[in-house]
Amino acid sequence: MIEISPATIEQYFDKLFPICRSITGNGVRQTIDILKEIVPLYVHEVPTGTTCFDWEIPKEWNINDAYIITPEGKKIADFKVHNLHIVNYSTPIQAEMSYDELLPHLHTLPLMPDAIPYYTSYYKETWGFCLTHNEFEKLPKTGTYKVVVDSELKAGSMTYADLVLKGETDEEILFSAYTCHPSMANNELSGPLVQAFLYQKIAAMTKRKYTYRFVFAPETIGIIYYLSKHGEHLKTNLKAGYVVTCCGDAGDFTYKRSRRITSEADVVAEHVLAYSGNKYTILPFAIGGSDERQYCSPGFNLPVGSFIRTKYQEYKEYHTSLDNKDFISFDAMYETINMIFDVVKALEINEKYMGSIQHCEAQLGRRGLYSNLGGLKNRSNELSNRLHFLNYADGEHTLREVAELSNQSMLNFEKEIQLLKDHGLIV
Amino acid sequence: MIEISPATIEQYFDKLFPICRSITGNGVRQTIDILKEIVPLYVHEVPTGTTCFDWEIPKEWNINDAYIITPEGKKIADFKVHNLHIVNYSTPIQAEMSYDELLPHLHTLPLMPDAIPYYTSYYKETWGFCLTHNEFEKLPKTGTYKVVVDSELKAGSMTYADLVLKGETDEEILFSAYTCHPSMANNELSGPLVQAFLYQKIAAMTKRKYTYRFVFAPETIGIIYYLSKHGEHLKTNLKAGYVVTCCGDAGDFTYKRSRRITSEADVVAEHVLAYSGNKYTILPFAIGGSDERQYCSPGFNLPVGSFIRTKYQEYKEYHTSLDNKDFISFDAMYETINMIFDVVKALEINEKYMGSIQHCEAQLGRRGLYSNLGGLKNRSNELSNRLHFLNYADGEHTLREVAELSNQSMLNFEKEIQLLKDHGLIV
Amino acid sequence: MIEISPATIEQYFDKLFPICRSITGNGVRQTIDILKEIVPLYVHEVPTGTTCFDWEIPKEWNINDAYIITPEGKKIADFKVHNLHIVNYSTPIQAEMSYDELLPHLHTLPLMPDAIPYYTSYYKETWGFCLTHNEFEKLPKTGTYKVVVDSELKAGSMTYADLVLKGETDEEILFSAYTCHPSMANNELSGPLVQAFLYQKIAAMTKRKYTYRFVFAPETIGIIYYLSKHGEHLKTNLKAGYVVTCCGDAGDFTYKRSRRITSEADVVAEHVLAYSGNKYTILPFAIGGSDERQYCSPGFNLPVGSFIRTKYQEYKEYHTSLDNKDFISFDAMYETINMIFDVVKALEINEKYMGSIQHCEAQLGRRGLYSNLGGLKNRSNELSNRLHFLNYADGEHTLREVAELSNQSMLNFEKEIQLLKDHGLIV
Repeated sequence: MIEISPATIEQYFDKLFPICRSITGNGVRQTIDILKEIVPLYVHEVPTGTTCFDWEIPKEWNINDAYIITPEGKKIADFKVHNLHIVNYSTPIQAEMSYDELLPHLHTLPLMPDAIPYYTSYYKETWGFCLTHNEFEKLPKTGTYKVVVDSELKAGSMTYADLVLKGETDEEILFSAYTCHPSMANNELSGPLVQAFLYQKIAAMTKRKYTYRFVFAPETIGIIYYLSKHGEHLKTNLKAGYVVTCCGDAGDFTYKRSRRITSEADVVAEHVLAYSGNKYTILPFAIGGSDERQYCSPGFNLPVGSFIRTKYQEYKEYHTSLDNKDFISFDAMYETINMIFDVVKALEINEKYMGSIQHCEAQLGRRGLYSNLGGLKNRSNELSNRLHFLNYADGEHTLREVAELSNQSMLNFEKEIQLLKDHGLIV
Repeated sequence: MIEISPATIEQYFDKLFPICRSITGNGVRQTIDILKEIVPLYVHEVPTGTTCFDWEIPKEWNINDAYIITPEGKKIADFKVHNLHIVNYSTPIQAEMSYDELLPHLHTLPLMPDAIPYYTSYYKETWGFCLTHNEFEKLPKTGTYKVVVDSELKAGSMTYADLVLKGETDEEILFSAYTCHPSMANNELSGPLVQAFLYQKIAAMTKRKYTYRFVFAPETIGIIYYLSKHGEHLKTNLKAGYVVTCCGDAGDFTYKRSRRITSEADVVAEHVLAYSGNKYTILPFAIGGSDERQYCSPGFNLPVGSFIRTKYQEYKEYHTSLDNKDFISFDAMYETINMIFDVVKALEINEKYMGSIQHCEAQLGRRGLYSNLGGLKNRSNELSNRLHFLNYADGEHTLREVAELSNQSMLNFEKEIQLLKDHGLIV
Repeated sequence: MIEISPATIEQYFDKLFPICRSITGNGVRQTIDILKEIVPLYVHEVPTGTTCFDWEIPKEWNINDAYIITPEGKKIADFKVHNLHIVNYSTPIQAEMSYDELLPHLHTLPLMPDAIPYYTSYYKETWGFCLTHNEFEKLPKTGTYKVVVDSELKAGSMTYADLVLKGETDEEILFSAYTCHPSMANNELSGPLVQAFLYQKIAAMTKRKYTYRFVFAPETIGIIYYLSKHGEHLKTNLKAGYVVTCCGDAGDFTYKRSRRITSEADVVAEHVLAYSGNKYTILPFAIGGSDERQYCSPGFNLPVGSFIRTKYQEYKEYHTSLDNKDFISFDAMYETINMIFDVVKALEINEKYMGSIQHCEAQLGRRGLYSNLGGLKNRSNELSNRLHFLNYADGEHTLREVAELSNQSMLNFEKEIQLLKDHGLIV
């Protein structure tokens, strides 16, 4: 087992951050090799041209180097300095050209002049460079530029990985993170890191009612392929699932509901957040977002929500070089892991319990579960909760509903349930 | 076709205003003759004594003249000056009498001393005059008054009119206005005028899914008779209906819900108002009101709401001579027509759509429906709406529900739906 | 019949207050003998050792005297001065002992030093005394104390009483109060007193649709036994029931919902309170409380709420000698009786009415139920209510729902319903 701490998370972050990931290629393979130190993943390769629903696996992309030499002989937009400089999936080129010819291939963010933007061109073959607007403004408009993109785009395969951790039943809880983003921190190394360490906590549980499935795949195309293989199985078996993304910053928690709105995935996640004492935001499903767009497409409509802290598109550093180590917090990531693990614990105990005595109260006194001195002006919280829980242990109310009827967290009842089982008061 | 503009509405208002309408008689016939210039109505005559449910068609009433000569020889309460001076349905009389004998037949509004009130006595045979309280107070209490009511109350018929405009299906949308009020403007010439011009807009649509029915009839007894003929048909075919009344003033819009509260008539009307940018009020059904009392009687319980601006009984000029041309606005009436026509357009497209790709997203890129440059910090509204709409195009959500899930008007999706149909993405 | 007035209630309070009640024994028998002057109760005796569900009827307890003689020869904690001085169900003892030996048997309330607390020990055989903290602090810590408890705890029986007042149908309304508390006023003489006088009002009704059941029994064990005898009958027949407790003080009304939340017992009680003009509080069921814990145990889940004024545990005098005649108000108790009787009247008329004319409105004019002069600017409330009621007299809406649709009390419609029945407009 790997010790879970902010420091360990940081150590793995530092290993993973520099890798140039994309939806295919060696960067993804390296990333999964490193994640395998934390989660014993199975790795899968899907050949270029494989079809899945309305889509087709694209060519594999790999890149060695890319840069521009200015007329003054200066090397800029150097891939080896920052992999965001190259538009992801750029085709190879080695050429000389004028400023005017180069211009349509350059991308900047005039409103964030210090940031390198992140762009991709997966489905249209072209090449391009991203640079800070400040650097762009200094470029001479005359003279000859030399452009080098030493990349390869050809038939190959798309890499993804998964793991199924068996529990007592075949009902499943899914966690899904994506592994296709180059050097950015919150979106997206936080998702795979949180999900990998969460695996460690779940694997360490002494008892698991549910089977747990962990998916690490490129966004969109990866999950579309995954659903073409496992979608029907998940329609039958999935109890709850969560996309884990943008969860490494110190912002408030955000839970984005599944399309079903009130699936168990949703109500339990919201319950845990509500009683966590943390500030949090609930977002409606509405389309837009990440891989839940596929999981929750109408043909599947799986109970898959999203665990997020500061949501994609809502922080200015999103999809730029400023979404870096400074933007995130390893303490926050550690806290995210624990929060999602609380949801796991809550899902595990969220049953409809059945008391052995349904008609009138149980005589708790002779079992040592009620004060013998009657008439006390105030009942203890422990006894109030006991009476409350037993009244609703009717085989019809879930623990979540019982807990919410007395406005408290389900997790408060974990020990009480064991005590009442020990006394034969729950069957 | 008649051009629809505030000026044209005013022109027809001026023709219709002076006519002395009642629940029967030549005033109604003249009114319908004029409305036929705008709507090609079918006219129906129902003989006195015809029974319908708990009611019976009354005698026909016509009037030529009515006035009082004071002891001083002054002609007052002259019907030819203002037709509100005579209590509607007054029986004929030609007599001399004292002030004390006349008094029980005089009606005024002491709190609005400049206004002539509007009174009727359809179901008890009597006669009476309405005058301003100012005029009343000047009457001498001694001497002989001469009273003339040159009216006729005898077996005849009740006149009403309707038109059915066929659409692609037999499902119907109903509009109902009443034609029984003498010279008053908001209540009630605004209703028949708005409804007549609305016909023009609906008749001009290139495609109509629904069949449209327009009813112009006297209030209460007219609709009770109409339901005795068409009620069972409407129970089978009516999708949505609206009573159109008091909708000619510049006040905020008011929508009065049908007794069903959440029928399609209600939810679509409220949706259009909510996203119109106008201020508006929603009223509960509760009884009281106009012809929806009949349409929504429990035996029919039709989905019929009411389109109103400033509601009857809620403006002080209501049912007096001050509800005149000064009180209303032809710009407002024009706006009402357009607002109701928006409801018609929304009803027409409020289907449950079915996308051709239900499992995962459609590959919009190769259809030119998605930006080829990925990673943009913000998605365009157009693309967000496209993804949102396609996700919910599952054959289960109405367009209204889809639109409300992203908090916008259904009418925003009109063009998008056509585009997606053209690309084969909606079946 | 006994006249119901604050003075009469006070007279019975004075008779009942001094008696030392418990869950068994002669105090209960005396109490019921006195209540029989107001309600013609049937008295039942249940032998010690009888089992009911998870419980067993305990030994019978009776007491003649109890006190402590201090080393200084002073008689304290004298049962004959205040029966709260003895822990209810104390076993007999006559002994001498030191302060240290006595100490574990003494109970006080340090935060309310003038109050004698109320304690019981029904299910563990022991003895004890309750005294004010002020008195306790003066006790010498050396010398010999003499302790006398002249009580008897042996096989006998538990006493309870009930009465069933037949109505036109077998559907029942239940009222339940408990009779096991010694000399305290709000909790608990107010419950039995209010319930007894309520019987008088219900017995005097000229017509009763429902059968009424009144239960006077010891808390918890009494009702558990009662349900073992009548629970299945009540599951079939009970329309609505109320525990009546802590309802003799001048605080605001409190209604504690049944576990079913929206049973007729609940919605009608809340309706009457809402339109009573009084301030009131609605409490959720949640467990905790009194005999509704048994009535609403999952195996029964009866529609039983609670009528309360200032709730047990929420006033500081609760379960002490300060819950005495000064704390309560006989005017308030009288008001409580009338409030609950309003609920009875509302339950009696809360039917789904059916109008004889379902299609369009009835012609009210020819029945003298509509003004003959039409066009009035404002309709009378009486006529508005008539049209409103008739529209919803569709066999589907309860009177409560109809009344709430026009935001008024059901009790306002009592006379109108009779009038419409007389005109044949309701069948």
